[in-house]
Amino acid sequence: LDSGRLGPVKRLVNTLSPAEIGNLLESLPPHKRQIVWGLVDPEDDGEVLVHVGDEVREDLLKAMDPDEIVAAAESLDIDDLADLLEDLPDTVIDEVLKSMDRENRERLEQMLTYEEDTAGRLMNPDVVTVRADVSVDVVLRYLRLRGELPEATDRLYIVSRRRQYLGGISLAQLLTADPAVAVNRLIDSEQPAIDADTPVAEVAERFANHDWLSAPVVDENNVLLGRITIDDVVDIIRAQAEHQALGAAGLDEDEDLFAPVPRTTRRRAVWLGINLLTAFLASWVIGNFEGVLQKVVACAVLMPIVASMGGVAGTQVLTLMVRAQALGQVSPANALSLLRKEVLVALANGLVWALAVGSVALAIYRDAWLALAFGAAMVINLIAAALSGVFLPLVLRRVGIDPALAGGVILTTVTDCCGFASFLGLSTLLLMQ
Amino acid sequence: LDSGRLGPVKRLVNTLSPAEIGNLLESLPPHKRQIVWGLVDPEDDGEVLVHVGDEVREDLLKAMDPDEIVAAAESLDIDDLADLLEDLPDTVIDEVLKSMDRENRERLEQMLTYEEDTAGRLMNPDVVTVRADVSVDVVLRYLRLRGELPEATDRLYIVSRRRQYLGGISLAQLLTADPAVAVNRLIDSEQPAIDADTPVAEVAERFANHDWLSAPVVDENNVLLGRITIDDVVDIIRAQAEHQALGAAGLDEDEDLFAPVPRTTRRRAVWLGINLLTAFLASWVIGNFEGVLQKVVACAVLMPIVASMGGVAGTQVLTLMVRAQALGQVSPANALSLLRKEVLVALANGLVWALAVGSVALAIYRDAWLALAFGAAMVINLIAAALSGVFLPLVLRRVGIDPALAGGVILTTVTDCCGFASFLGLSTLLLMQ
Repeated sequence: LDSGRLGPVKRLVNTLSPAEIGNLLESLPPHKRQIVWGLVDPEDDGEVLVHVGDEVREDLLKAMDPDEIVAAAESLDIDDLADLLEDLPDTVIDEVLKSMDRENRERLEQMLTYEEDTAGRLMNPDVVTVRADVSVDVVLRYLRLRGELPEATDRLYIVSRRRQYLGGISLAQLLTADPAVAVNRLIDSEQPAIDADTPVAEVAERFANHDWLSAPVVDENNVLLGRITIDDVVDIIRAQAEHQALGAAGLDEDEDLFAPVPRTTRRRAVWLGINLLTAFLASWVIGNFEGVLQKVVACAVLMPIVASMGGVAGTQVLTLMVRAQALGQVSPANALSLLRKEVLVALANGLVWALAVGSVALAIYRDAWLALAFGAAMVINLIAAALSGVFLPLVLRRVGIDPALAGGVILTTVTDCCGFASFLGLSTLLLMQ
Repeated sequence: LDSGRLGPVKRLVNTLSPAEIGNLLESLPPHKRQIVWGLVDPEDDGEVLVHVGDEVREDLLKAMDPDEIVAAAESLDIDDLADLLEDLPDTVIDEVLKSMDRENRERLEQMLTYEEDTAGRLMNPDVVTVRADVSVDVVLRYLRLRGELPEATDRLYIVSRRRQYLGGISLAQLLTADPAVAVNRLIDSEQPAIDADTPVAEVAERFANHDWLSAPVVDENNVLLGRITIDDVVDIIRAQAEHQALGAAGLDEDEDLFAPVPRTTRRRAVWLGINLLTAFLASWVIGNFEGVLQKVVACAVLMPIVASMGGVAGTQVLTLMVRAQALGQVSPANALSLLRKEVLVALANGLVWALAVGSVALAIYRDAWLALAFGAAMVINLIAAALSGVFLPLVLRRVGIDPALAGGVILTTVTDCCGFASFLGLSTLLLMQ
């Protein structure tokens, strides 16, 4: 498509939603990306910028002149603008702030007082509120006068004279209720408001647990500041999943698929360096058993099997634990039950596979002592794998490290070292007399 | 808490939402689980059953007598019931079907004609429809007469005389429009309907891309069958994330955290067995170089480092590719650009780390040929890792295997074998003359 005429491409691009355009831009190599970005309807520029990763955004912003950026920023809702603002050049920020009316500027400034990844930054301050003492009919007339409601409005919030949150009333209720009834008869005060400094992960959890479509956000005095809508929560849940999937491989979800080679190399090098250290540790363990390796070359051939089985078994336990932790399903109360179960499973699997690999080793090398060392090391390493699979996430969480990100590296270091040490150690004992 | 008086526990449990109760039950060892399950308000039984994994559900159903199950099933929405039905005993299914009115039974039967994990199974047939030729005022009066709307209703659907989908009108529009206006003036026909046989993954993608709160589902004749709401989509997105995270370790997301030891052992054994085969393959590669291993014990010490670095680098590329595939960002058009980038990154990192590990090897073993073989093998293996990281997901996808699940095992097999072969092969060439 990009081999000439841009007319059809332009038409195609502008049938897509901003999220889809963002996705498309992320999938294009740099030069094509700039061409397509030039074809996007300027009205969508702002929304598209919100929907791409940090690095691609930087790349796209570079191609825009300040006027275009200001225009794009002005087209955004306040919550999206708050999200984008930090990536904009200072002169553009000034320009945008100047162009806003005072109310919106104050709202934006208030949002920015909350830390990133909290409800206060995620919310949209654009909410429709009503007072509790009016009738449904008054509300209906007010809404008709007001015209269009903010996007994804499913309920109006009822506030006190001081804008304190009292409860909500759904649009469905307004439509089906008797117009003469007072709003405070219909008020649904069951939905608790979210504190503005609640972390977004907890916000997402609550939305999912209660099937909310939107939720009110309040400050420490219960004053209504705005609302969070489910579409933002969907974005969070997707971002969390990506963060976990990529983080376990030492990658950043905001990375551009087509980032320049030197930048990518430097970033990957960090992770490779960390892993090199752990690999050298395992290698040092092997180095301590040069004696047996020199005499029994089969040990060098078989030792990676013991290490790799431990790594696989441990990763299974670790993955289960990390998931259970994320769901809040692990506590000191049930950790012991889990540990017992996992150790028993490891013992059972260890015995089964020890028998299997031991027989194979016996068949190939015709050495019962070697087969015994091989099988026993397998059992020992699977149990070590189960122990670290259960304990590692608990310990890491305790010291404030995300087990989903760091757990894998540490675990395989443990199972590698333990696998090599147990197999080569046993071999030394049994074969070197 | 579970050490005696159940009164406070019962009160606590029943302040939780069904999803939270489900989560709690999943985190409890079997005997405590049954105690807490007995304390759950029977009204919530059905919803809780919907919110737990397959295995835990089976466990909970075992403890209920048929009458209780029928009562729980009857309390559910049709979409939830369709979800649950397959896990119920046949006698209970008959009972439930008998207790439904004809309309609902027909709706349920229609849903069950669609395959699992399609829009037709996910939808809720309970929708409010209006005709295009009436005025807003008529709709408002109809709604007041009708009373409560189905949960999470954000728009009414406009259908033809033959119930064909024409478009929607949001509750917000109904509330703000002039009552005299005809509905067909306000009709929003921009939202395309979803075909009932669309896979749920695609449904989730469309919701996320367009910030929908709900979407209409139609059959092949464009007849409106029901609607899908965002809360179901949130559940799908979370389930997808779990499936990927657990699947990569050979685990099943429906597995009970406290499944009995024999069952867990058997399941884990399958994955360990697959990995054992790949480990033996790598070990066979090593076995071909017994000559150099016997003469130069340092080879045995250093070889796991080459293999492990390849595994780590390859996993990074694979993870990026799998994510880009999931987002639809990889195509034959840009695969070549990606490949070139990744090979260059691998080459750059390979040279850097080859120099580093080569120097270390030289310092320890004072053997320039060994250091050279070590460094060169590192470069070769990192490039092999990049190649398989890019190609594997493309090939697996082509043959219909999910790269997120099987990619890791195959990739590390490749990097292990290639790492051992290149290092031991080069060592044989350089050191055995």
